[in-house]
Amino acid sequence: MNKKKIINDPVYGFISIPYDIIYDLLEHPYFQRLRRIKQLGLTHYVYPGALHTRFHHALGAMHLMQKAIQTLQYKGVIITPEEAEAATIAILLHDIGHGPFSHALEHSIVNVHHEDLSILFMEQLNEEFNGALEMAISIFKNEYPKKYLHQLISSQLDMDRMDYLNRDSFFTGVSEGVIGYDRIIKMLNVYNGEIVVEYKGIYSIEKFLIARRIMYWQVYLHKTVVSAEQMLIRFFKRIKYLFEKNSLFEIPDSLLFFLEKPLNVTNFKAHKKTFLDKFAALDDIDITFLLKMSVNHKDFVLSTLAKNLLNRNLFKIDMQNSKFSGDHLDAVRLNIRNQFKEIDDKNLEWLIIEGSESNRAYSNKKDEIKFWMKNNQIKGLVDAFDHVIDSKYLTKYFLCYPKIF
Amino acid sequence: MNKKKIINDPVYGFISIPYDIIYDLLEHPYFQRLRRIKQLGLTHYVYPGALHTRFHHALGAMHLMQKAIQTLQYKGVIITPEEAEAATIAILLHDIGHGPFSHALEHSIVNVHHEDLSILFMEQLNEEFNGALEMAISIFKNEYPKKYLHQLISSQLDMDRMDYLNRDSFFTGVSEGVIGYDRIIKMLNVYNGEIVVEYKGIYSIEKFLIARRIMYWQVYLHKTVVSAEQMLIRFFKRIKYLFEKNSLFEIPDSLLFFLEKPLNVTNFKAHKKTFLDKFAALDDIDITFLLKMSVNHKDFVLSTLAKNLLNRNLFKIDMQNSKFSGDHLDAVRLNIRNQFKEIDDKNLEWLIIEGSESNRAYSNKKDEIKFWMKNNQIKGLVDAFDHVIDSKYLTKYFLCYPKIF
Amino acid sequence: MNKKKIINDPVYGFISIPYDIIYDLLEHPYFQRLRRIKQLGLTHYVYPGALHTRFHHALGAMHLMQKAIQTLQYKGVIITPEEAEAATIAILLHDIGHGPFSHALEHSIVNVHHEDLSILFMEQLNEEFNGALEMAISIFKNEYPKKYLHQLISSQLDMDRMDYLNRDSFFTGVSEGVIGYDRIIKMLNVYNGEIVVEYKGIYSIEKFLIARRIMYWQVYLHKTVVSAEQMLIRFFKRIKYLFEKNSLFEIPDSLLFFLEKPLNVTNFKAHKKTFLDKFAALDDIDITFLLKMSVNHKDFVLSTLAKNLLNRNLFKIDMQNSKFSGDHLDAVRLNIRNQFKEIDDKNLEWLIIEGSESNRAYSNKKDEIKFWMKNNQIKGLVDAFDHVIDSKYLTKYFLCYPKIF
Amino acid sequence: MNKKKIINDPVYGFISIPYDIIYDLLEHPYFQRLRRIKQLGLTHYVYPGALHTRFHHALGAMHLMQKAIQTLQYKGVIITPEEAEAATIAILLHDIGHGPFSHALEHSIVNVHHEDLSILFMEQLNEEFNGALEMAISIFKNEYPKKYLHQLISSQLDMDRMDYLNRDSFFTGVSEGVIGYDRIIKMLNVYNGEIVVEYKGIYSIEKFLIARRIMYWQVYLHKTVVSAEQMLIRFFKRIKYLFEKNSLFEIPDSLLFFLEKPLNVTNFKAHKKTFLDKFAALDDIDITFLLKMSVNHKDFVLSTLAKNLLNRNLFKIDMQNSKFSGDHLDAVRLNIRNQFKEIDDKNLEWLIIEGSESNRAYSNKKDEIKFWMKNNQIKGLVDAFDHVIDSKYLTKYFLCYPKIF
Repeated sequence: MNKKKIINDPVYGFISIPYDIIYDLLEHPYFQRLRRIKQLGLTHYVYPGALHTRFHHALGAMHLMQKAIQTLQYKGVIITPEEAEAATIAILLHDIGHGPFSHALEHSIVNVHHEDLSILFMEQLNEEFNGALEMAISIFKNEYPKKYLHQLISSQLDMDRMDYLNRDSFFTGVSEGVIGYDRIIKMLNVYNGEIVVEYKGIYSIEKFLIARRIMYWQVYLHKTVVSAEQMLIRFFKRIKYLFEKNSLFEIPDSLLFFLEKPLNVTNFKAHKKTFLDKFAALDDIDITFLLKMSVNHKDFVLSTLAKNLLNRNLFKIDMQNSKFSGDHLDAVRLNIRNQFKEIDDKNLEWLIIEGSESNRAYSNKKDEIKFWMKNNQIKGLVDAFDHVIDSKYLTKYFLCYPKIF
Repeated sequence: MNKKKIINDPVYGFISIPYDIIYDLLEHPYFQRLRRIKQLGLTHYVYPGALHTRFHHALGAMHLMQKAIQTLQYKGVIITPEEAEAATIAILLHDIGHGPFSHALEHSIVNVHHEDLSILFMEQLNEEFNGALEMAISIFKNEYPKKYLHQLISSQLDMDRMDYLNRDSFFTGVSEGVIGYDRIIKMLNVYNGEIVVEYKGIYSIEKFLIARRIMYWQVYLHKTVVSAEQMLIRFFKRIKYLFEKNSLFEIPDSLLFFLEKPLNVTNFKAHKKTFLDKFAALDDIDITFLLKMSVNHKDFVLSTLAKNLLNRNLFKIDMQNSKFSGDHLDAVRLNIRNQFKEIDDKNLEWLIIEGSESNRAYSNKKDEIKFWMKNNQIKGLVDAFDHVIDSKYLTKYFLCYPKIF
Repeated sequence: MNKKKIINDPVYGFISIPYDIIYDLLEHPYFQRLRRIKQLGLTHYVYPGALHTRFHHALGAMHLMQKAIQTLQYKGVIITPEEAEAATIAILLHDIGHGPFSHALEHSIVNVHHEDLSILFMEQLNEEFNGALEMAISIFKNEYPKKYLHQLISSQLDMDRMDYLNRDSFFTGVSEGVIGYDRIIKMLNVYNGEIVVEYKGIYSIEKFLIARRIMYWQVYLHKTVVSAEQMLIRFFKRIKYLFEKNSLFEIPDSLLFFLEKPLNVTNFKAHKKTFLDKFAALDDIDITFLLKMSVNHKDFVLSTLAKNLLNRNLFKIDMQNSKFSGDHLDAVRLNIRNQFKEIDDKNLEWLIIEGSESNRAYSNKKDEIKFWMKNNQIKGLVDAFDHVIDSKYLTKYFLCYPKIF
Repeated sequence: MNKKKIINDPVYGFISIPYDIIYDLLEHPYFQRLRRIKQLGLTHYVYPGALHTRFHHALGAMHLMQKAIQTLQYKGVIITPEEAEAATIAILLHDIGHGPFSHALEHSIVNVHHEDLSILFMEQLNEEFNGALEMAISIFKNEYPKKYLHQLISSQLDMDRMDYLNRDSFFTGVSEGVIGYDRIIKMLNVYNGEIVVEYKGIYSIEKFLIARRIMYWQVYLHKTVVSAEQMLIRFFKRIKYLFEKNSLFEIPDSLLFFLEKPLNVTNFKAHKKTFLDKFAALDDIDITFLLKMSVNHKDFVLSTLAKNLLNRNLFKIDMQNSKFSGDHLDAVRLNIRNQFKEIDDKNLEWLIIEGSESNRAYSNKKDEIKFWMKNNQIKGLVDAFDHVIDSKYLTKYFLCYPKIF
């Protein structure tokens, strides 16, 4: 059977499947499931085109990995066919541990970081594929000697970021997020076992960092998106709460497992195959269906959150650079109480969501981006660049609550 | 409240909301629901980017309608502000009657054409908006005197097609489907109350027809897409069959209504608000969840269809220009029987799907595209063009069945 | 010295220089000269972006050749590194024989076809490069056994066309001319030593042919472009006429040579190096400067043509599918005479230009495009396609003359 | 006559001519001449696509002005039809004073700033158009009361920059320079008679400034481009020098005027029509032809510069953030002397070019970009932004000299 397929991708034109094992991994239900997990959760409520999936992102990152490997080989870096395949597998599966709505519900459903789940999935697949993923796992865990292979998968300049910035800016239509990924990849090289960038690519790197920062504040942490995702988190919390109080409707089987007991890395590791299968059965569909089932539930908090989310009647959100004053909180609380006279104080608190989001464009401490200068010196970005690089954390505080009429 | 919002659209850059009533219609749950109905059903199984929704398409068609109206006004065609608003409403709502998976399940769930449902929805909204949709409905039904307004919504050159070709080619990445929509719109004019195209746009029109034909055979009727959609239709048929035999699991409330009794235009009209609310509660999510629930069902036919669809292990499909011979059918049947020894003859037939799909690039009979020639004559496309226009129906016959190992 | 340069190209992103000899050829004054020859002559008078040069087109075609070779190698076609290099050289130099304003003045300045001049240039360069172009020349002349290499350079599906359609539609902004070049290239294969296309690429091929036809009638043979180019041809003819009559200004040295004696293949071959150097010294600049020098010349015909060309006050052009009637010609002639009372009959004829242009989308006779059908048969396009392919010649007759007020 | 033309533009799709007077201005030889002046001088030696002209840029800026005016009117800013037309004329003609090779030769040919020449051209046209450009001139000179109209033409956020960044990044293929011009324009508003930006557009503005900075250092001041342009300046200086010494060939009439006497604002104003006509007769063609004529000149400096420029055998260029040390200069001088033994010391200095280039992303002093905050306050960019804005001058020192073998 010919497994050398070509897949249309609006972002890159065509993506070729480079190895037979990649084809087989794509066919696996663990991977097909990523078709039902949107890359950007509820972001499509602000950017209606942002419906692309983890499946598509994984293909895209794999495509860029091919390009990066070719570039490095062209420049004389020795990457064996086995290493190339392993690095390709590793990037393909780097996000396979994501659950429904990706980051939004990451710690609501199971108490395991998605990267740990990715490793568990890879290990399970490694068994099913008779050890064929050994080297991929080693690269993914940064245990493989050629550190630059890991850096292509996970670093401030990895193919993951490269693809998601491309893809997210493409599907949102936020042209400010467009990056010169092809130029950046063509500028990569390896020096002392680590990824470096040729000096003449330095403006492309700055552009990349700025574009990423813009994507954070304009898309990923867009206030309306934050509001929707906070509502979803709160909704799921309420589901659990009502479930524990036995006040919920009959829960679909697929979800039952995740409500009945707390799940963490330890019990996941203990029951790998069983738990992974359960987890793999879960995706955006189940959660959205749960929302739909909850619309008419008698619990006011649950049905309010569900209805407002489904019909995109989202909570108002205030966002600012400093913490909210007690006065502001009191004023909001009072307004809401006046509006929802029928609910008690405790439930009222469920409808007010406080929190913060942070991001920085670039970390100059850990894992800095390095440049190959014209005189064959290696310099970190901050030293190499003629202009200032923003490496400060920016934190924004938010407060969500029902619209007051 | 400021309702003059701007929406990012990767296809057109930005879409402005031109009228307050448009904003209010967008906010309505009937319309928000279109966010959960993919424009192209299961096409994303072949083109992973094709996840865009009816919601997005409706916005896009509305955007092009603005452009078309502006162009005609610029050329001196008198369109009043009321007419402009009404035509905009009509195009926005032209597809609001679509149900889960759009065309694929169109006649499986209810026995009503989506355009009839669109009219029912518009009438219902007209009541809720105190008659503000009167003129829009009249234009949509082609009862309004200025026929060209209807033609912009429904004809061989309407803004619906213009947007879906653009949008579908954009999200699939099939660049062959790209059309010069901006040029075409700039070439529109009105003559004797009908839409005509300036002669110098004739190659753009041909390109548009060819692009549409390519989209049909390369995307909408792509053999793998046909296979997936036929499996879905068969799946839903089996659901109904098992439901009637009381052999199904407990059906979610949202779907129950549609399984209990046959629904047609007559009873829809009789119970408009109730039935529309039920119908509006239904979308891709419910059907996909149904698939997920069916994966482990004891009925072999149902679980086979469900599992294979979910994991994209699709039926093999043969497609050809003539009917399949009895011999070919017998051979397929025999093979399948050998593979699925456990199932009986009757159930076996459920796994073999035969049918055909037809399309033609252009109809030169009904509603032909007219050109304003340089000498002020009006000519139909076929007469006006220096080259041959393909107006033949092409029919392809298909046969789907489980892969044989 | 590192000759592995990367060149920015708005059409393909980046073009890499694949071989050192390519770098050296690019540096040669014969090749650099192509920077001063616009790909589309005076087309920028209608499409102001169309200023791209033969230099850029040659780079683009070379880039696509790399892609085509990689695709074929990926599919198992054996192309040696020497052959790959030779084919790349051949496509790079395929148009090096073009003179000022490319096709427009092709037979006005020297009486040699540009392909013959390309061969002469290649032979000269072969001497300078000590025989390194031997195989490239053999491929270019179709004398090399692997015929498909020649077909990539010259056939109905060659990389020349592929690039010029891409590039010309890009720079003109005529989106109707966009082709799916990446898809087409990915569909190429070799069968029995000839280029074939995989069947599933057939709609892309049709699209390619239609796009090419559109480019002909909407760009290359756009009536305003034809008018401008006919004026240029007539202008140069007048220059020669006045030169022979000794009524011209002092001619710049670079042009003198081409006015003094008729140049044809025979004397070009006889004096290769000398004549090529003279020819290579000539480009769009010289002709445009000639126009500028002629603006105030006392000869009415010459200055009229020059001034009107420079200021884009172009002749009116009638274009139709049949020959012009004598009556029409007489009427035009009369009008012009009335307007230009000061010039005599003979000179008047210089301002009236009659001619015709022909083109066809596809030749099904010579060198047809072949498809690799699913059953491993090979079929020509016409037989393989479900729809009609336009392979008729279309001829348009034109008549240009000064605008009459 | 219908003057409502539509022009294809690869950057924006289509550009419409909004007023009859715009059509007439486009037709004027003063404006048509801009077709022969490249926007980016010799930049195409690095970015081969960068052949676009001042003509095209002027059209593009005019197009954006239309968009900006529409946006402001949509938001309730009152701009009369006369003002809209005047602002459109002003932007169309803002660069009409550019001479051959735009900035590169700006102070070599005449000693007048191109903006002063633009005003002189406008005044001359105003006479020819019977005063129809009165208001346009007043806006251009910032004498019109509505200051924001002038700001759309000349400020840190004007339509000139908006178009040239778009256009230059498009034609060079430097995707890092792409800006979200449509978003920026949609964010414009007027407050207290000045242009302000809605706060939510602040990231787009930062992106715009960064993109501009990238374009400076990666394109406009690219070291190879600087080298080529410095050679051109030196070449023209040598032409003048030899002319004064009577050692030159016979100079074409068009150039003679500019060599014979120094030209400055004073004598330009004194002889407006005559001098403008002379100046308008000059463009890239004349200078390039001059280069071609000089290739075989007996003066070593002249022919070296000419030949090397024409064949793109450019001088080596060193570029650094500090001044060159005397030692470095001496070393270079020595090397060159060894290579060119035949030329004397004085002439040697002609082949060594020293200088510097400066640029800054944003001036926070003069004419800062202002934002309309959510609380209706107005803040300058630096205060309004959560991140650091780079407003430092960066200066780079360069040294060009012939390649040493």
